[in-house]
Amino acid sequence: MENIAYYNGKISPIEEMMIPMNERSSWFGDGVYDAMFTMEHVPLSLDDHLKRFYRSAAAIDIKIPMPYDELRALVIDLCKKVDSPVAMAYVQVTRGVGMRGHAYRFAGDKPSVWVFVKPDYMDPLDKSYRCITHEDTRYYYCNIKTINLLPAVLYTEKAESAGCDEAILHRGDRVTECAHSNVHILRDGVFQTAPCDNLILPGITRAHRIAQCREMGIPVVEEPFTLEEMMAADEVIFTSCSALCCRIGEIDGKPVGGRAPELFERIKKAALDEAYSEAGIVRL
Amino acid sequence: MENIAYYNGKISPIEEMMIPMNERSSWFGDGVYDAMFTMEHVPLSLDDHLKRFYRSAAAIDIKIPMPYDELRALVIDLCKKVDSPVAMAYVQVTRGVGMRGHAYRFAGDKPSVWVFVKPDYMDPLDKSYRCITHEDTRYYYCNIKTINLLPAVLYTEKAESAGCDEAILHRGDRVTECAHSNVHILRDGVFQTAPCDNLILPGITRAHRIAQCREMGIPVVEEPFTLEEMMAADEVIFTSCSALCCRIGEIDGKPVGGRAPELFERIKKAALDEAYSEAGIVRL
Repeated sequence: MENIAYYNGKISPIEEMMIPMNERSSWFGDGVYDAMFTMEHVPLSLDDHLKRFYRSAAAIDIKIPMPYDELRALVIDLCKKVDSPVAMAYVQVTRGVGMRGHAYRFAGDKPSVWVFVKPDYMDPLDKSYRCITHEDTRYYYCNIKTINLLPAVLYTEKAESAGCDEAILHRGDRVTECAHSNVHILRDGVFQTAPCDNLILPGITRAHRIAQCREMGIPVVEEPFTLEEMMAADEVIFTSCSALCCRIGEIDGKPVGGRAPELFERIKKAALDEAYSEAGIVRL
Repeated sequence: MENIAYYNGKISPIEEMMIPMNERSSWFGDGVYDAMFTMEHVPLSLDDHLKRFYRSAAAIDIKIPMPYDELRALVIDLCKKVDSPVAMAYVQVTRGVGMRGHAYRFAGDKPSVWVFVKPDYMDPLDKSYRCITHEDTRYYYCNIKTINLLPAVLYTEKAESAGCDEAILHRGDRVTECAHSNVHILRDGVFQTAPCDNLILPGITRAHRIAQCREMGIPVVEEPFTLEEMMAADEVIFTSCSALCCRIGEIDGKPVGGRAPELFERIKKAALDEAYSEAGIVRL
């Protein structure tokens, strides 16, 4: 199939799937999600993503009404059914269906489970990316992967309108993350990234890059950095499930990074090796 | 009918209305809404609410694909079709339907228009309400009535779990508003309320109470007040489309207000008179 959707037991192409208007997503964005990419139909870091998904749900008091192993098997099965070997696999749970009312009691007894897999592309790793900066005007639940994503929509649109790829967010002078990825810097041989608090999403790809840096003996510092420190860094990198390790070459029209290409290449190669290995791809 | 829903030209009971999974509400909460109450099937302050609705949509770059007069007539018509004379009338617009992607270009060409009317009750005006306080952890778009309402869901649930009616929010010491209403104080004969910035919703009912206070010669100050000032105020009041003028008698388990009952009663009577008058109800 070109793409596939699952909603509370029903399966169809995404475009044909209908849901009740009275979904809690419709009125409140009352749900959480997670997303990962497939290579050769294999959802990368599947367990990391699904574990975070169950944690996100618990953080807003939603109990996902499907055992972990069942959801895991469902995702793997749907990824196999989609023609494209490279795709986004997406899982979501909402508090359920019920007449509009803020309190949980208005939701039905059963949270809704949503899954889809659609062909998508991963961000090329050999490109130099352009970003804008934007004040981080989001809520203080950024560590939970909720579907209250309107600010990310607005930031992304601003970035695209400026001919750029991503928006780097900052609260005052402190850089937090991007509209839909984490941002890191390399300076003096060190990989520096914001700590995991309620201002950033604890990215799976972020965690993998950190672990790999440590394995390779590259020091890692999880401390906030400022806009000025970012602009002066040896390299600026963003990561997400679709951007395994991407180099930023321009921010707000000014050139950045490019001063530690070998270190960047080492981290990038490790990222790519890991993904290929997990997908069972032999590189010649 | 018991209730009624409209979605992009389709009409049905709310519980039977189905929408595409690929609605932008499903993935991003990418839309805005407005809500009002009916008395005798008359939607109160209809034009105030609809004008704010069009302003909210414009603030996130959505053009509502229905002329104002047409939407106005639709709302009035649906309110007449619902059996209950007291009901909530709700309008919503989302950026449209399309495969998930943050930027606007992923939405279809046509934003989606949603309306529903359901029986509801207005908050009694002769009750003393109990509230909790909660740190305001929302985003900085509180002046736009978007459907990114998860924090309001969480706050409301906390309030209800504590046996209370509302959650009063504060950024640090500064009181902003409630989970789904505005909050005001009376002190030394003055009606004080937070100014309209990006930290509060510019409530229609708030504006009406302000206008009426001024007409009655009651001084109004639109300046932030602190938690301490609220706890020490002569009266604490909250307002929303369902709460025309409600007195808070207890906050975090401590008694508040009750020291300017005559002034409160004047404002309350004016509120009620206005609503009855608009609904064409003659009070004996």
